[in-house]
Amino acid sequence: EANGNLSCRCAKTTRAFIPPRKYSSIEVRPVGSSCRRLEVVIKLKSLERFCVDPDTPWVKKLLQDLPNL
Amino acid sequence: EANGNLSCRCAKTTRAFIPPRKYSSIEVRPVGSSCRRLEVVIKLKSLERFCVDPDTPWVKKLLQDLPNL
Repeated sequence: EANGNLSCRCAKTTRAFIPPRKYSSIEVRPVGSSCRRLEVVIKLKSLERFCVDPDTPWVKKLLQDLPNL
Repeated sequence: EANGNLSCRCAKTTRAFIPPRKYSSIEVRPVGSSCRRLEVVIKLKSLERFCVDPDTPWVKKLLQDLPNL
């Protein structure tokens, strides 16, 4: 992307729900100088990775629940 | 570790505060079958990685602030 988001790592995101029991980790990349949007990447136990849309309701709830996971 | 936490990836954690402006990402690994404790790994823009203690006050606050980072 040439619009200053040069090093965003999520080209596309999904809104589809992914059940927590499948998670290996949740990675949150804060808005920063190189990428102007919050990025949330869920790594599964199957080693697959999904960029999920931070504005999706279930993702918002997940981020709030993080301390209790 | 031979106590069932075979694949915990944080051998040791730090409680020392790391300022958010240095963060590249925050990775949260939920308590799971292979590791029985919550692990929080902060990756810095310098590419260094730190396992931080989830029970430390500033880490607890960080996890709550994640949606707004």
